[in-house]
Amino acid sequence: MLLQSHIAGRWVGHTPAQALKSALNGQGVAHTHAESLDFGEAVHHARRVGVPALMRLDFQRRAAVLKALAKFLMERKEALYALSAHTGATRADSWIDVEGGIGTLFAYASMGGNELPSGNVLHEGPAVPLGKQNRFAGTHILVPRGGLAVHINAFNFPIWGMLEKFAPSFLAAMPCVVKPATATSYLTEATVRLMAESGLLPEGALQLVIGGTGDLLNRLEGNDVVTFTGSADTAARLRVHPNLIAKSVPFNAEADSLNCAVLGDDVSPDDAEFDLFIKEVAREMTVKAGQKCTAIRRTLVPRRHLDAVAERLAKRLAGVKVGDPAVEGVRMGALASHAQMHDVAERVAQLRQSAELVLGAPEGWAPLGEGTAEGAFFHPTLLLCRQPWQHDAPHDVEAFGPVTTLMPYEDTDEAVALAARGRGSLVATLVTKTPQLAARMVPQMAAWHGRVHVLDAEAAPESTGHGSPLPMLKHGGPGRAGGGEELGGIRSVKHYLQRTAVQGSPSMLAAITGEYVRGAAVKDSELHPFRRYFEDLEIGHSLLTHRRTVSEADIVNFGGVSGDYFYMHFDEIAAKDTQFGQRIAHGYFVLSAAAGLFVWPAPGPVLANYGLDTLRFVKPVAIGDTIQARLTAKRKIDRNRRDAKGVGQGVVAWDVEVKNQHGELVASYDILTLVAKRD
Amino acid sequence: MLLQSHIAGRWVGHTPAQALKSALNGQGVAHTHAESLDFGEAVHHARRVGVPALMRLDFQRRAAVLKALAKFLMERKEALYALSAHTGATRADSWIDVEGGIGTLFAYASMGGNELPSGNVLHEGPAVPLGKQNRFAGTHILVPRGGLAVHINAFNFPIWGMLEKFAPSFLAAMPCVVKPATATSYLTEATVRLMAESGLLPEGALQLVIGGTGDLLNRLEGNDVVTFTGSADTAARLRVHPNLIAKSVPFNAEADSLNCAVLGDDVSPDDAEFDLFIKEVAREMTVKAGQKCTAIRRTLVPRRHLDAVAERLAKRLAGVKVGDPAVEGVRMGALASHAQMHDVAERVAQLRQSAELVLGAPEGWAPLGEGTAEGAFFHPTLLLCRQPWQHDAPHDVEAFGPVTTLMPYEDTDEAVALAARGRGSLVATLVTKTPQLAARMVPQMAAWHGRVHVLDAEAAPESTGHGSPLPMLKHGGPGRAGGGEELGGIRSVKHYLQRTAVQGSPSMLAAITGEYVRGAAVKDSELHPFRRYFEDLEIGHSLLTHRRTVSEADIVNFGGVSGDYFYMHFDEIAAKDTQFGQRIAHGYFVLSAAAGLFVWPAPGPVLANYGLDTLRFVKPVAIGDTIQARLTAKRKIDRNRRDAKGVGQGVVAWDVEVKNQHGELVASYDILTLVAKRD
Repeated sequence: MLLQSHIAGRWVGHTPAQALKSALNGQGVAHTHAESLDFGEAVHHARRVGVPALMRLDFQRRAAVLKALAKFLMERKEALYALSAHTGATRADSWIDVEGGIGTLFAYASMGGNELPSGNVLHEGPAVPLGKQNRFAGTHILVPRGGLAVHINAFNFPIWGMLEKFAPSFLAAMPCVVKPATATSYLTEATVRLMAESGLLPEGALQLVIGGTGDLLNRLEGNDVVTFTGSADTAARLRVHPNLIAKSVPFNAEADSLNCAVLGDDVSPDDAEFDLFIKEVAREMTVKAGQKCTAIRRTLVPRRHLDAVAERLAKRLAGVKVGDPAVEGVRMGALASHAQMHDVAERVAQLRQSAELVLGAPEGWAPLGEGTAEGAFFHPTLLLCRQPWQHDAPHDVEAFGPVTTLMPYEDTDEAVALAARGRGSLVATLVTKTPQLAARMVPQMAAWHGRVHVLDAEAAPESTGHGSPLPMLKHGGPGRAGGGEELGGIRSVKHYLQRTAVQGSPSMLAAITGEYVRGAAVKDSELHPFRRYFEDLEIGHSLLTHRRTVSEADIVNFGGVSGDYFYMHFDEIAAKDTQFGQRIAHGYFVLSAAAGLFVWPAPGPVLANYGLDTLRFVKPVAIGDTIQARLTAKRKIDRNRRDAKGVGQGVVAWDVEVKNQHGELVASYDILTLVAKRD
Repeated sequence: MLLQSHIAGRWVGHTPAQALKSALNGQGVAHTHAESLDFGEAVHHARRVGVPALMRLDFQRRAAVLKALAKFLMERKEALYALSAHTGATRADSWIDVEGGIGTLFAYASMGGNELPSGNVLHEGPAVPLGKQNRFAGTHILVPRGGLAVHINAFNFPIWGMLEKFAPSFLAAMPCVVKPATATSYLTEATVRLMAESGLLPEGALQLVIGGTGDLLNRLEGNDVVTFTGSADTAARLRVHPNLIAKSVPFNAEADSLNCAVLGDDVSPDDAEFDLFIKEVAREMTVKAGQKCTAIRRTLVPRRHLDAVAERLAKRLAGVKVGDPAVEGVRMGALASHAQMHDVAERVAQLRQSAELVLGAPEGWAPLGEGTAEGAFFHPTLLLCRQPWQHDAPHDVEAFGPVTTLMPYEDTDEAVALAARGRGSLVATLVTKTPQLAARMVPQMAAWHGRVHVLDAEAAPESTGHGSPLPMLKHGGPGRAGGGEELGGIRSVKHYLQRTAVQGSPSMLAAITGEYVRGAAVKDSELHPFRRYFEDLEIGHSLLTHRRTVSEADIVNFGGVSGDYFYMHFDEIAAKDTQFGQRIAHGYFVLSAAAGLFVWPAPGPVLANYGLDTLRFVKPVAIGDTIQARLTAKRKIDRNRRDAKGVGQGVVAWDVEVKNQHGELVASYDILTLVAKRD
């Protein structure tokens, strides 16, 4: 198989170069291509073709494309599983890469559809008045940067690693140039071929680089973005690339780190949590043969439980069958390459300067399966460092394989301090059964970690585990882990957008953000806005209702219907003693009466009021006050959805202001409705 | 005056070194000190004394300290104005630095009090279930990093520049080490002296470096932060500091940029907006003698108005009186130093290679006032480049003084493209009277700018101007402007905190975040939670109410009281045709009835329900359904406030779940209350 790059819509490469070998048996899987690439063309294509094509869609449509793409890939996943076996992965390992990657597309499709607007301007409001008359206000927008994203990825998750960065970049309308690590680039290439085949992606949205990046980074501008996943050393080297520095090109790094698991001081060997700890450490060591940047490299336990943990962990690890995953019962496969195997062996040798060996490969050990003698297998290895403050290596030297170093701590403060000795990690696990202990330790541990996973018997049946980044949670840690942020829900889309403060009159801000801003000109019209179909409704369409005088009878009746006889509404004596000095109407009455003022009772395009946001009762309404409401179309989102009956519908948020006879605001909120489309 | 550094609580420096001179007349104002500083001690003090002292306070208390500090400084502002005159500033210029700086403290005190929690964990929720039974969930917290902030500041705003960074760092519990630019460090030193005198700051919260930073940056770790304001070149140099790179120390830069003002294609010389444009450009050129990183360096106008703009702008600038601000009528003072003056002259000479001079210093021109011949004055200078695509200099060469280059554009697309030729700027102004034009241009301009200021006749009376960063709006632009983010409300506090994903059982997450998370264990008790005083109420205190069966009479009565006769509640025929197939109760009835279920009618500690957030009507309630509510204390914020009667009160948010007889959620929301304290 000859791998090809995908540049400017063409597949490039006809001459085999480097041979990529199976981790299982050392046989050839694919070749890279010898042809060098024209990165000027790639960058030009991304800017001149990719950006305009992506901008012709909008946030909502790009989310829909992601969903279709995820479906397309899921139907073809078995081809990817078959290829993935060459990396030494078990089916479970491959699941993380293949279905974890496709699942991330689904997740971003869903988050994008639910949380992003129509159009290409994301309003991060609310707008705030900057003057007393509200003639000048300020707010923030996030907009596509008009540049491209270069994603430089690690070898361990060639599919997930591409898709987890592609999804948010794509939503942000950034064309991607993906450069996978060469060793496993055949999986990335196969996935990109499927994506191209799908015909779902706009032209220029995705390019693939097999081999080196040449002068690519020299060609970037300040509106581009570079992300990197891999070793801390390479991250540090790329970060100072002169052109990235000269242009302030954002650089996001997610680097290997010396992640830890901490057994809480409250857990004793008889607790279920003790077992959970042993299982979690053993699993994290052996999944993907420990080749995860999130794997547990340091295992911290109370000194009094050191021997018990060492014994049970060694026993569990000794039972893990290692070999060709095709062999029945094999639970751990190979490292990705011989180079990796030698590297891990070297790091273990370094670590042994400061740690004793509890478990390594037994004399004469051989992996299960045929031809595996030529494979890149490594036996699970448990080290023990009894004096963790006297040595740097256990906190600094990362063996990127099934290796962890066990270390004791004396008390909780020391456990927190030892965790921080990793100088910044992607993730830590704390196993405890005591919420108060978690409340004390986790915020301190958080200062040095991108994610903290708390495990107890309650959570265990549903825990996704120490090592798994999830689309909705931030991935990336401080310090040694690179200081980056990936994933984390819609946050990660925002990382690819440019946040800009915008100032101007409310009418200008409304036009720019595509959302009604209080103080902007409204469009009063004969037709009640609830009678307009989604397509016909414009931001700013508004209704100033008739008025209603609030009487004592209203309060009495509302109390009777609701059952709410709070003294402020019903106890003349106690109400005199409040800050208002008299009985006032129920806030919920004001809300309900406002609905009575603005509702259009007959069937019409407004299908449902499904929610309400940011309600504030600004001033009390007293007996005799007269209220009036203004309802204004604030935000429209077209999610391209239909209801059960096939009626197309969109989301419309309405700004509601209820004022009294003095023109003073008494209640303020947004209501959320579903509005039918004409077609 | 001998300036001293403030390190580890001591004032350091007894031997004069460099003389700092008045920009007005070249006479000596102060001396730096010759003693070198022990940055090991400074860093140790910040970590070992500053961090613990700041953490003994919490977000709310730190906000209160900022407010007291702002008051203290405001009462002593005249001393700072007097000193500020030496920088060549007019009173109006100094106002930006002195009162703008103190105002920023007030603004952060207020934002902190309103938006930050009690305690030292900021929950950035909501928590989301990660399993079907909600035994495992995830959320994000932001926590103090436990490190220090090094702020390296520019010469032009020695007070504001310190305070605008100090305020968010302080809220984030980061001790600051401030290094002002030497030329105007006497103002920073005077302010730090006042801050120390106030006795309000915890020990170690603020240290001051007069002179160079020596090996300070070598001593930083991954949980520290460095910020820089100044030239793009210096930003690029600092950003690659080997230790900052090795440790992934976050580095935030705000660098000078070639900001532009654009006259919209819709504005003609007769429009009010035309005058506004002339005034804005002239003001931005002359305020602070153009020494603002936000000043307008490029002035883009439709080609057909080029001559009109050149003429009117030159005329206006020619009328600006330049000299000693103490002289009546003087509107522009001196540059900060002779070095700056020579630098500006040199840059103007460079710019003149590609631009003609429309206005410069007239033959024999001299600034007004005595002794000013020795001052660092520079006449307002207007350049004109007729072919802006043929030259780089107008887009690249920054003359940091009262200088702008006028350039023509043909159409709106070209105006946007020329604005982007600055390769990333802090701010752009667009003067237009047409919201649709703003809606088209601003999102495109935003991709290359940190802030876009839209000016029209409506906004002008309240506009804070092109050049003024505001505490609630982001400051910092992409590309050449450094790619940083400062200010922008509570966002800027978050930049100094560590964001960490947290996973665990809901009970664990509730303990860690200090907020009730659905699924966590609740505390049911005999005492109604509304009868507990603020101090006695614990997160998780909960009430499961009695039930209520919803009848047709409820719907009828609710319609009568509210006036809401929507067909879904009242029209049997039309309701059959909806997705629900029958009449359903008003959502606001469910809300009101839930209040009737959980309210405690007699006077008690709950003083008011002032609002409601994130209400969702999850399922319809039909006639015959029986509802029940659970009310749980979710969040407590102690703002240390008292009402008009002197009763101490805190904010309590309550989680409300309303379920039907099948245990299905029908409505979900938070209510916001004020709860009295015992004391």
